[in-house]
Amino acid sequence: MKVEIWFEFASTYSYLTVSRAEDLLQRAGLDYEWKPFLLGPIFRDKGWETSPFVFDEIKGAYMWRDMERRAERYGLPFVRPQKFPVNSLLAARIMTAALGHSWCSGFAREVFAAQFARGEDISDPDVLTHALEKHVSDPRRWVDLAQSDYVKGELRTRTETAKDIGLFGAPSFRVGDELFWGDDRFEDAIAWAVKAGID
Amino acid sequence: MKVEIWFEFASTYSYLTVSRAEDLLQRAGLDYEWKPFLLGPIFRDKGWETSPFVFDEIKGAYMWRDMERRAERYGLPFVRPQKFPVNSLLAARIMTAALGHSWCSGFAREVFAAQFARGEDISDPDVLTHALEKHVSDPRRWVDLAQSDYVKGELRTRTETAKDIGLFGAPSFRVGDELFWGDDRFEDAIAWAVKAGID
Repeated sequence: MKVEIWFEFASTYSYLTVSRAEDLLQRAGLDYEWKPFLLGPIFRDKGWETSPFVFDEIKGAYMWRDMERRAERYGLPFVRPQKFPVNSLLAARIMTAALGHSWCSGFAREVFAAQFARGEDISDPDVLTHALEKHVSDPRRWVDLAQSDYVKGELRTRTETAKDIGLFGAPSFRVGDELFWGDDRFEDAIAWAVKAGID
Repeated sequence: MKVEIWFEFASTYSYLTVSRAEDLLQRAGLDYEWKPFLLGPIFRDKGWETSPFVFDEIKGAYMWRDMERRAERYGLPFVRPQKFPVNSLLAARIMTAALGHSWCSGFAREVFAAQFARGEDISDPDVLTHALEKHVSDPRRWVDLAQSDYVKGELRTRTETAKDIGLFGAPSFRVGDELFWGDDRFEDAIAWAVKAGID
């Protein structure tokens, strides 16, 4: 059974998931689908102007320490970027334009590495262009395509779907009707999909 | 190195932790300390009148489903009690009075099982007395002791300490200065303590 990976480029824990997703899913022999979406509109519906990791300082301090430990556990480099959370709109739009192309997973990993392994600002189009350069010969065309009405609408619709199916954080996983929230539920989601495929 | 287990009797995920703690810690050869505390005062400091699983219905719905899955994974029975969250004050006070006695772990497990395996209301003194009966010959004396100024003060002080060290949810674990939040970080806390003991 297919695993949908709902992620947000501004989300720290999404970095952990996206960095290890292909390896885990291929080993489990599972099909998967990237679902880039925006948490901003979901947070705003709750009356939140920013991430709870910013307005709840105690929880935020814990998250940064927890991220250090979890990244180390997975052998991933991790730095705390100066800006958090960043505006991830263009990154999510480029990913949306790239969905279905074999290089889109590599692009997503590259954007997360820029932000959380090297501390770069991924709201900067140059950083995204640089990530695209590693995968395509015409990065400008992809940045333009990402800002087409069609791609903008696709991302907006996907974010609405995220609300409709009850997502409230990232990363989240959907396997059939089953929802899992958090990088620490990724293995549970995989086990669920494997079991559903056998039953 | 010792693992401190900070838990709240009204907390669903604390049920998972308390039910499996002794087994996990004994297998790891680790010393541990129960730290019953109250989340209410910590939530009230944030302006919350109840659990986020109540006022955030979407997150609440997810939590109940997640609890079903996690309990099944651990082989624990689980029902959703009619009242949530319950007033856990008396339970926490009895546990505080019982700390240091060999039967206190069994009492804690029993109270959680009453609430989340059988759906009983643990704010009812009779339910707590019944849990005590399995471990002591004079349950009334323990209920009285639990309401002494000394025990009340101990629980109040421990809850203040929880705030001071940056706890914001339950269960949480402290190993030296390292904090871990959530039943899904219990194994990480244990691994940390084992490693700290070797280094």
